[in-house]
Amino acid sequence: MSEKKDIILSGMRPTGKLHLGNLFGALENWVRLQDEYHCFFCVVDWHALTTAYEESLNIKENVREMVLDWLSCGIDPDKAVVFQQSDVKEHAELHLLLSMITPLSWLERIPTYKEQLQQIEGRNLATYGFLGYPLLQAADILVYKADAVPVGEDQAPHIEFTREVARRFNYLYDRKVFPEPATILNEYKVVPGLDNRKMSKSYNNVIEISIPPQEIPSRVRMMITDPGRIRKSDPGNPQICSIYAFHRIFNQLELKNIETACLEGQIGCVECKNILSGWMQKFLEPVFHKRRELEKDPQIIEDILNKGREKAREVARSTMQEVRSAMGLL
Amino acid sequence: MSEKKDIILSGMRPTGKLHLGNLFGALENWVRLQDEYHCFFCVVDWHALTTAYEESLNIKENVREMVLDWLSCGIDPDKAVVFQQSDVKEHAELHLLLSMITPLSWLERIPTYKEQLQQIEGRNLATYGFLGYPLLQAADILVYKADAVPVGEDQAPHIEFTREVARRFNYLYDRKVFPEPATILNEYKVVPGLDNRKMSKSYNNVIEISIPPQEIPSRVRMMITDPGRIRKSDPGNPQICSIYAFHRIFNQLELKNIETACLEGQIGCVECKNILSGWMQKFLEPVFHKRRELEKDPQIIEDILNKGREKAREVARSTMQEVRSAMGLL
Repeated sequence: MSEKKDIILSGMRPTGKLHLGNLFGALENWVRLQDEYHCFFCVVDWHALTTAYEESLNIKENVREMVLDWLSCGIDPDKAVVFQQSDVKEHAELHLLLSMITPLSWLERIPTYKEQLQQIEGRNLATYGFLGYPLLQAADILVYKADAVPVGEDQAPHIEFTREVARRFNYLYDRKVFPEPATILNEYKVVPGLDNRKMSKSYNNVIEISIPPQEIPSRVRMMITDPGRIRKSDPGNPQICSIYAFHRIFNQLELKNIETACLEGQIGCVECKNILSGWMQKFLEPVFHKRRELEKDPQIIEDILNKGREKAREVARSTMQEVRSAMGLL
Repeated sequence: MSEKKDIILSGMRPTGKLHLGNLFGALENWVRLQDEYHCFFCVVDWHALTTAYEESLNIKENVREMVLDWLSCGIDPDKAVVFQQSDVKEHAELHLLLSMITPLSWLERIPTYKEQLQQIEGRNLATYGFLGYPLLQAADILVYKADAVPVGEDQAPHIEFTREVARRFNYLYDRKVFPEPATILNEYKVVPGLDNRKMSKSYNNVIEISIPPQEIPSRVRMMITDPGRIRKSDPGNPQICSIYAFHRIFNQLELKNIETACLEGQIGCVECKNILSGWMQKFLEPVFHKRRELEKDPQIIEDILNKGREKAREVARSTMQEVRSAMGLL
């Protein structure tokens, strides 16, 4: 913490192996951010309970698989603090203390709250914890005095809420304990799933980051192309083709040529898929091999999380001393 | 924890010096319970924030004064575990984990919630923490696997709520982690204030447990007697006289005689007050001297709370291991 870099906090729920949607939606950004900022990358396992409390979780395995993906994509535990939320009890303490000053109405009006209550069917989400999970996020962020948080657009209201909580705390106790974290809107690439819907585990349409390279062609063959195109000589429509969407990510170099060839019926979907598979293999092969290397050491993830825990705790403890002192609890 | 005694948890908010209402409403029971049960007596400092988050608290001094009162009235830290809630972060962690499985509606329907929202004016209590404070109580109780909780009648719904939360947890994770704590309804004596309303700090009508014995007579002289009685020979009405209410507590021996003499106009209020003062001095003198002894050691409260913290943590940690394992967080 000696460097004067700004502090960033970001988290992911431990869902096990990540897919390309996670990579291009968030992880790619993290890898870039870790050079510019003092980053805290947090496995938010408590958050996993807000919507999945009824499932029997295998958190430990899910954490391991996810952090292996982080590392194989370039997250460097010597640059960023990689740790697990439940290892730092100060998150729970700050959540509790902030709950005392947070109006219920602030939580009730967060747009994601009512949306999710309606969208996620078949589970009873009307719990105290589900209502409070943006406050847990606020505690995750504020306990490290983060200056900024990279998020997708849908999460931006949560960071606005975090700023409101920080302001209210600083105002009530008349000292500037918390900075108001800025929102860094993720630059991200949209990754369609194999079926052209959004890539998502719940749609069962994903390609995992850790896919063995030799399996990539068969997975690419499953992708849905322009359904109106029967023969190679029919002109295709790249805008509704998931192969084209993947070329956009993995094959910028030939993108214009591919588009023209498709529109003019000069390239068949099979050939187009083969070209894509080649580029994807080229991109994902080093990731795969790095993961294989990492997997050889059964202790490595535990060691990294233990080291991260100590660094995170040090910062969180120091913040909590200030918080307790401000609230008259010392 | 080797004895097979049932476990009891009870707490008090650190409000500083206690008064006779606290003594006869709760503390007297605690002293009795500590011989029969394995008792955890908790200074619930986080609870003080649910309604007083805007005030500048002097928790440390308030804790010290209150625990001095506990000890001078007979709480024995060699029998009971005397500790401070915020010293055991597991309360916050369990509160957070239980929040994930607790329906909002359960909290909203607790009778004290809406009553207090209405009663306590001039403060914004519609906070997330205020809604959740019965859940924090539940965590306080369940983290020690308490078998029973001594409470006043108004708090009984909170223990019922705690049982519901325990049942839901045990059901969802299919193992009996938590016992369902029984309610021990406090036997208590109603102590009127100097003005004949309920004795309460907010009415400024209290007699402190730690009152110097020589100040008792002047305080007793302030008590309100039957306002219809002008002369000694007028028959008095003990039922509306606070002096009589105090005789009921401190002077069971002469109670019948006092009542008869008052009804027949044979004893004047001044004499009646003098008799009461004598009995109160007799009762409170040893308490006062014990407190003086304790105050000589400036470290004693800190030492007791430190010792209690270690004992409490040991139990709380072991419970949390079970909780995390049940929820799949290990």
